[in-house]
This record gives sequence, structure tokens and C-alpha cells, in this order.
Amino acid sequence: MTKVIFDCAISLDGFFAGENRSPSNPMGGISMKLHQWMFKQKAFWKHIKQEGGEEDGQDGKLIDDVFARTGSYIMGKRMFDEGEVVWAEDLFEADVFVLTHEMREPWVQKGSTTFYFINDGLESALELAKKSAQGKDVRIQGGAETIQQFLNAGLIDEFFIHITPIFLGKGIRLFEGIDEDKYELKVMEIIPSEYTTHIRYKLNKK
Amino acid sequence: MTKVIFDCAISLDGFFAGENRSPSNPMGGISMKLHQWMFKQKAFWKHIKQEGGEEDGQDGKLIDDVFARTGSYIMGKRMFDEGEVVWAEDLFEADVFVLTHEMREPWVQKGSTTFYFINDGLESALELAKKSAQGKDVRIQGGAETIQQFLNAGLIDEFFIHITPIFLGKGIRLFEGIDEDKYELKVMEIIPSEYTTHIRYKLNKK
Repeated sequence: MTKVIFDCAISLDGFFAGENRSPSNPMGGISMKLHQWMFKQKAFWKHIKQEGGEEDGQDGKLIDDVFARTGSYIMGKRMFDEGEVVWAEDLFEADVFVLTHEMREPWVQKGSTTFYFINDGLESALELAKKSAQGKDVRIQGGAETIQQFLNAGLIDEFFIHITPIFLGKGIRLFEGIDEDKYELKVMEIIPSEYTTHIRYKLNKK
Repeated sequence: MTKVIFDCAISLDGFFAGENRSPSNPMGGISMKLHQWMFKQKAFWKHIKQEGGEEDGQDGKLIDDVFARTGSYIMGKRMFDEGEVVWAEDLFEADVFVLTHEMREPWVQKGSTTFYFINDGLESALELAKKSAQGKDVRIQGGAETIQQFLNAGLIDEFFIHITPIFLGKGIRLFEGIDEDKYELKVMEIIPSEYTTHIRYKLNKK
């Protein structure tokens, strides 16, 4: 059965992105610090269709796993704007539903990636994404605000966080303004790593 | 060699205490939620000199461990004010240095706990606490602001966090305004538990 998931790195002080995000400053410039565990993995570079990476270990397997289980994506417009200028063609190999007020025709890429621009809210995007996922999972890709909206709407089934052992001090927090009474959370899996701490949570709506 | 440590529970969204803390509302009323893992442990009740607890397992051993390694304590005045009205006599079994502007004579309790009220800042308190610890560790007990001051002064060697799988939504964050460039952090130990996730970090000052 399709689950609604997200999968993000955060700093130890809880930041998902830095300040002053824009297409010319994706994630507020902190991605190299926050995602160092990912950039070391061959699996990551394979998925973004570039050469790179040094390792082929457990951290990389987690990257493969989340790609494999995901059948479609939902993202916010700011994340799309930051990615549009840099992402390789057919990066997602799936349908991507972008939450936006902008009216725009679907952007069909070579391969199997199509971006759909959804103007009538997250429930509507989720319905389309579930249909598209065909039994695989729907991944809420980001940014933080989009994930917060899905969390507070009670729509998330499971998430993975990767806690990077760094302080960022400022920026955009992943868990900001989360409804305290929406879910019971359960730790399903903890995977230690030299570079980060992977924790998988399952959410049961109260 | 004496290390300067702290050891705290935080919610998944990073909160250490709730809103509106006061002696009649210690920790902003969220302690039962945040510290449920601790309250289940016989070791915790033994240390606060009361009857209680259901379990005698690994979570309890961590509570014993941090008591055993600590030779003296430092805390902020707000935490002291909240605790003074409820703590058992001789709770700490060590010297406790309270950072405050208030002038007050040492409060010598029956047993081995003495509270000293320090008016000239954290470095001064730390010097006294290190002497008192006699080779054991100095624990920065809290609250969050006091821990932040020690972190940002580059004085922390190691800490344990216990990430409770709950959202609190609002309150006082443990890691707020942390200097991003002060330390290199290393994950030393991760201990899964049914109730929380224990992670021990080592800090090397850059």
C-alpha cells in the first residue's frame, strides 16, 4: 500500500536549509555541509546522473532504497525553482507534482519525468501523486514548509531523517510549528554511520 | 581528566522545555512527555531518592552512568529556582554551582550537596566546579540557555542527547543560536531504545 514519506538531512540544531534561499543560492548554501554523507556515496551521483562518489556502502544503500520505493514526488514551488536550473534531465524518473499558484503546462522531460503544476492544494496533489505511484510510495521532497504542511495535515506515514553532526546556527528548520497532538511516533530503525545518524520514524495519526 | 558535559532530553523538533517556565510550572509542564523514558527507570527514582520505576534496563544504566561520572554541577538560576522547591535533600550528592546575579551564602544540605551561588560568570563557575569534581566530570545541568552559553564559549567536551519521538511544537529549544564554527562534532555512540534515541557526541574545538 502506498505510504506518504519524506526523507531529509537536518543539522543537529534542526536546520534543513540556510538563509536567503534562491535559485542562485539553493538551500541557502549549506548543502555541502549538510549532505556531505550523501555526496560521498556513488549511489547519489548515479541517481543525479553524474560521475562521482567514493563509497558504495550502507549509506549509499539507503539512497538507493528511497529512490526504489518512491513512485511519485510532491514538492513546493521554491524547491522546484531552485532545482529547475540545475537538475539533470529526467532526474526523478517519475511524476513530480509541484504545489504552486502559477498556471503552467506539464513539463514532460525525455525519459519518464514529468512535472505537473498543481494549483488547488496539497490534498489534490496527493490524490494525483498516489494514483501515479501505482502502489509505490509518494515522497514529499520538500522544502521544509511543504513537509510541515503535510505533517500538520496528518498525511505523513513515515519519514527518515539523517542528523548530520554539525551546527548551522540559523536558517530554515525542518520541524517548525509542528502540531504536537497529531501523531504517535515510533522509532523503527536507527542506522549509525560515520557521517550522520539515520533514523526512521513511523507515524500513527491519533 | 575532567570533561565538561551535558546530558539532556529533547523532542524530535528540538525542544528542551515548554513555554511559561516558572517554579510553579517547571520546564513549562512538558517534562512528563519529554522524560517518559527516564520516569520508567528505577535508576532515575533511586537517584531522586523516591520509590518508583518499572524497569532496570539499558536506559536506566545510562542514568546511573551520568550520575557516576559527574563530580560537580553547574546550572542557571532559573533551573535552580524551579528545582529548589521540589528537589529532595542532597539530590546531587556533589557541589552545585548556580550562575546568578543574586548574592547568597552557600546552601549546605545534609549529606554531600552544597549549592554555591556564583556572581562572576561561567568561566569562574567552571574553575570552581573543576576543582570540586576531583577528576570526575563537570555536568552543565541546564537550562537550555546555560548550555548554549557553555557551547558558544567553546567549553563543552562531550554531550549526550536523548531524542524523544514526540513533537512539542513550541517552547525553548536546546540548540538555539549555536555558533556554527566552534567545534567539530563526532558521533561516539548511538543507543536505540523503545522510548528514545540516545546519542553521544564528542566535540573538538576548531
